Amino acid sequence: MEKALYTVKFIPDGLETTVEAGSNLLEAALSAGVHISASCGSTGVCGTCKVRIETGSVSSPPTEKITAAEFQRGIRLACQSRILSDLTVFVPVESRLDKAVQAREKVQLSGVSASGWSFSPPLKKYYLELSPPTLDDNASDLSRLLRGLQQHYNLADIPVDFDVIRKLPAVLRESQWKVTVTTVVVSDKMEDPAGEACQIINVEPGDTRRENYALAVDVGTTTVCAQLLDLNRGSVLAESIVFNRQIHYGADVISRIAYTQKPNGLRKLQMEVVDSINETIDELIKISALTINHIGHITVAGNTTMQQILLGLDPKYIRLAPYTPAANFIPPVKASSLGIHAASQALVYIFPSVSSYIGGDIVSGIIAAGVHQRPKLTFYMDIGTNGEIVIGNSEWMVTASCSAGPAFEGGGIKHGMVAMPGAIQDFSLDPDTFEPGFQTIGGVDPKGICGSGLINAIAAFLEAGVISRNGKFNSHLSTKRIREGADGLEYVLAWAAETQIGKDIVITEVDIDNLIRAKAAMYAGCHTLSRSVNISCSDFEQVILAGNFGSSLNIDKAITIGLLPDIPRDRFVFIGNGSLSGARLVNYSIDLLRDARKVARMMTNIELSENSDFTHNYVAALFLPHTDEKAFPTINGNLNNPDHSLK
Amino acid sequence: MEKALYTVKFIPDGLETTVEAGSNLLEAALSAGVHISASCGSTGVCGTCKVRIETGSVSSPPTEKITAAEFQRGIRLACQSRILSDLTVFVPVESRLDKAVQAREKVQLSGVSASGWSFSPPLKKYYLELSPPTLDDNASDLSRLLRGLQQHYNLADIPVDFDVIRKLPAVLRESQWKVTVTTVVVSDKMEDPAGEACQIINVEPGDTRRENYALAVDVGTTTVCAQLLDLNRGSVLAESIVFNRQIHYGADVISRIAYTQKPNGLRKLQMEVVDSINETIDELIKISALTINHIGHITVAGNTTMQQILLGLDPKYIRLAPYTPAANFIPPVKASSLGIHAASQALVYIFPSVSSYIGGDIVSGIIAAGVHQRPKLTFYMDIGTNGEIVIGNSEWMVTASCSAGPAFEGGGIKHGMVAMPGAIQDFSLDPDTFEPGFQTIGGVDPKGICGSGLINAIAAFLEAGVISRNGKFNSHLSTKRIREGADGLEYVLAWAAETQIGKDIVITEVDIDNLIRAKAAMYAGCHTLSRSVNISCSDFEQVILAGNFGSSLNIDKAITIGLLPDIPRDRFVFIGNGSLSGARLVNYSIDLLRDARKVARMMTNIELSENSDFTHNYVAALFLPHTDEKAFPTINGNLNNPDHSLK
Repeated sequence: MEKALYTVKFIPDGLETTVEAGSNLLEAALSAGVHISASCGSTGVCGTCKVRIETGSVSSPPTEKITAAEFQRGIRLACQSRILSDLTVFVPVESRLDKAVQAREKVQLSGVSASGWSFSPPLKKYYLELSPPTLDDNASDLSRLLRGLQQHYNLADIPVDFDVIRKLPAVLRESQWKVTVTTVVVSDKMEDPAGEACQIINVEPGDTRRENYALAVDVGTTTVCAQLLDLNRGSVLAESIVFNRQIHYGADVISRIAYTQKPNGLRKLQMEVVDSINETIDELIKISALTINHIGHITVAGNTTMQQILLGLDPKYIRLAPYTPAANFIPPVKASSLGIHAASQALVYIFPSVSSYIGGDIVSGIIAAGVHQRPKLTFYMDIGTNGEIVIGNSEWMVTASCSAGPAFEGGGIKHGMVAMPGAIQDFSLDPDTFEPGFQTIGGVDPKGICGSGLINAIAAFLEAGVISRNGKFNSHLSTKRIREGADGLEYVLAWAAETQIGKDIVITEVDIDNLIRAKAAMYAGCHTLSRSVNISCSDFEQVILAGNFGSSLNIDKAITIGLLPDIPRDRFVFIGNGSLSGARLVNYSIDLLRDARKVARMMTNIELSENSDFTHNYVAALFLPHTDEKAFPTINGNLNNPDHSLK
Repeated sequence: MEKALYTVKFIPDGLETTVEAGSNLLEAALSAGVHISASCGSTGVCGTCKVRIETGSVSSPPTEKITAAEFQRGIRLACQSRILSDLTVFVPVESRLDKAVQAREKVQLSGVSASGWSFSPPLKKYYLELSPPTLDDNASDLSRLLRGLQQHYNLADIPVDFDVIRKLPAVLRESQWKVTVTTVVVSDKMEDPAGEACQIINVEPGDTRRENYALAVDVGTTTVCAQLLDLNRGSVLAESIVFNRQIHYGADVISRIAYTQKPNGLRKLQMEVVDSINETIDELIKISALTINHIGHITVAGNTTMQQILLGLDPKYIRLAPYTPAANFIPPVKASSLGIHAASQALVYIFPSVSSYIGGDIVSGIIAAGVHQRPKLTFYMDIGTNGEIVIGNSEWMVTASCSAGPAFEGGGIKHGMVAMPGAIQDFSLDPDTFEPGFQTIGGVDPKGICGSGLINAIAAFLEAGVISRNGKFNSHLSTKRIREGADGLEYVLAWAAETQIGKDIVITEVDIDNLIRAKAAMYAGCHTLSRSVNISCSDFEQVILAGNFGSSLNIDKAITIGLLPDIPRDRFVFIGNGSLSGARLVNYSIDLLRDARKVARMMTNIELSENSDFTHNYVAALFLPHTDEKAFPTINGNLNNPDHSLK
């Protein structure tokens, strides 16, 4: 006997679906495109999928998650309810997946994150049970499919990828006309804020809606970070970080661009970064017990040079004045055409960039932190290999790149390393003995020191008088930690026997000099950009720090060395890898995909490289914390080396 | 010294362009997107490019093409005029290229052609002189290009092919920022009548607007016909016809589909048809002294099976009840992805089809003949390898496929051949001696006989009593032309010595039987389809015949054998290869591109293969002209064989 069909309507969205009698209510919601939070995996344990039955009836076992009063009011767990009639179901705000995911993201981004978006991934799946063709209805296979999407999901007139047409006849018949259609929303126009196109990119036999995964990638100059996302839950299944294999060809973007100009150089560097991405993918699918074919969509954020090299776009003119990128808005490309390990239909979304030195990674970070949503005057600083800053709010934004170099990611530092296990990330100093205390990432024996460790160590040196305000060691202190090394004076952080590398881990005066130059570039950039819009650093209502240099960034220490402006500490927040977070969030919501395009267009880029104010401010900042003592009122009094003054 | 810049406005279109002082007015029109007729190639000889200068001044030499009175009124030849100031120029209807091309097409299509469309090719070129980037304006290369298109041509926000972005930085700089942008309009949505997308597919150094060529292709089961088109003039540069190399794998679509089901069969047949298309292209570019890179766009019309095989879409279910094609509306594909010899950016537009047996070739022919534009009740018949018919007008259309087989293209006929040089295309018979008179295509010695020759010969046989009304030879006639051959009785059209093939060219009783079956299928289709919409053949206000079987089709003879209904002769018109004409016309006008989608959607397909009325009508038509003598009132009286009656 055939089962009765019931119509289930979800309010307040107004979305409907038709299901067989006895179907699960949570699944019905999924099929209607309503995202309900269910973090326990439909076991009835978490109680987050509460809905209210407005009309109609369901069968639902008693559970301690529902009080008698709630039960009386029609509250049920969607995951435990079977549909017994036509239904109208109310989904309360707290049960909505978008709220749950937004809350989770807010924690992850230290409280400053984009809000108000709906959970509506660009990659969507629709299950269809089609009636087979007859002589009276022998429409083409594609017409039948499109008609089904129209009837069941009210989706009209979506362009179809040619490869879908190619496989369609066989898939429809082998599945007995029960298929899952995958669509993706991509931004395809530059000027139009709503210039998006939805297209059908895949058709699979049977119901595969439970498998809907995407990848978020941050392609940094030094590292490639990726997260594998479950789009049905809005959650991160696994994360991976690897070195960008391009580092063998130079530490910064300039040397990479130089290499691309050699014969076959662009192709070689493109393959290196693709291999790096594939290394993360291979790790992620192994952890998650998935396959490459499960990766249905990829979002990539990177600086302009990294994005262009990944796409095989010659970055030559990024390096030459007047510094023009090939394009800031790139149409989606097939992952397979780049050699990326993913489903054959998967598209790669590339974040829009602003200029040659303000790339998609900055746009992505701004989106993740929700800077564009708030009137609050915000200073956003990405302390990566390059160093980019943004000042602005929901109304306007100016941005600049500081050419800070890779010191904060360990580049150009004798024992520098990226924030990976074994990196010294926190550091303290006994003011009497000058003996160090440190913590490594993962708590293992040290292999080197990462950005946060360096900042903390140099601040500690400065406070204890181990170094002078121009970054030179005090050789008169009675400690065997300070000694003459191959590159001049150095401080031994860890003796060889304590390390994983079997060598003393040191900080040299050259390292300190590199760090001072890097922090001077960042600070000068901040100062110059602020002045360009007639703002003083003390006007910042919020300072958002992004970067992949360890979670132990100590704001006080960063101010002590003059990297950050000396303003009230409660205005600072560190959000980690903002670029990766933005790449994750646009996989969750087309609202944010749209925002990314708006943000890239609203940012005004200021070129610092040929700006004489910047040069002046940079030279003035080559001191700890700064030549202008008044700019750091809370710092100078604490320093234990009043005798080291400006010459 | 820099030349002054002048603005030229063309009315009534209202299009504007800015050009240097002294520029040619016809070229200015081209750059503004105004198409002016100039058939002599700007030599001032043809006088078709007359325009009226409304305001401003030009210098223009005296010419006998312009009378003194005309000169007084400001009439000038655009091709001979140099611009001396800002101008307002009126382009009269008779000088418009769309009118000129429409008139030319009307002649070509025997007076029944689509009208009222504007000359606006889907493939367009725009020349841009951009200002190079500076530090104050270092927008991305793509932004600069799009900005130029917006400023100079008011084109906003066009999606860009990724390959254009890839080559853009180098092309812009090597050309000193003077480039030509190519756009193409493609239909990308199925349901939306205006569902078209314009995209940028190429950027070239310098001004290449003078080179704008496209290809129109009719992919028939037996032959592939192609025309190389000059999109600046709306003219055919060259035409080529070759066999579809798939004929080695079977004469009709059913045997082709069967072959595709063998291992690697689909790929093999796809390569054969691609090779056939390439054979026409290679010939066309040789004749025209062009290169493959000049072919910027390709339109293809073919039956559903031919189109699917060309695209590599498995045609398996076209052959199996209930006969479903993979898709009726196909997104554009890159020519290079199919292996077709054309510019790397060239797209292939595939005509929409209606069903498994009513393909893009029929839609194309209907468009070419303008059936969809007129209220006149029209019967359209494509007498190709299959045989498709359409009844309708601008309001409605029904259509059916008749499975007539390839006899009219020479298939299954002992000395049958397609309409190529050497084919006997006209035939007469001395009623006393029974000696033949014939004409071949090209006037050369005969190689065989094509469709029109067969129809004319069999009608002549019937009228002279050489054959009976059931198609059997009268062996009692005193002529050595009729003799016993390997396949039974036969008539010798030409003795071996008169031919190119060194063998007697004959028509056998088997040939006649095949032709009778083919004409019976066509006639029965017409009868059945008419009845299905309660129409009688005598209601047809117009009968349009399309087919590639020789230009000497004699309507009287076709009625004599019962292929066409016996209605007044002045209602008939033969338009030749309508499919190829439609493929040409959509290269000239996006209006017709849009019409093609509308027509494909408005046609109601009737399946005859499982229709018992059709079977009955088919059997009744297996007689010359028909078993129902009353249906052919003007014929039976003329026949010289009253003694051959129905048994």
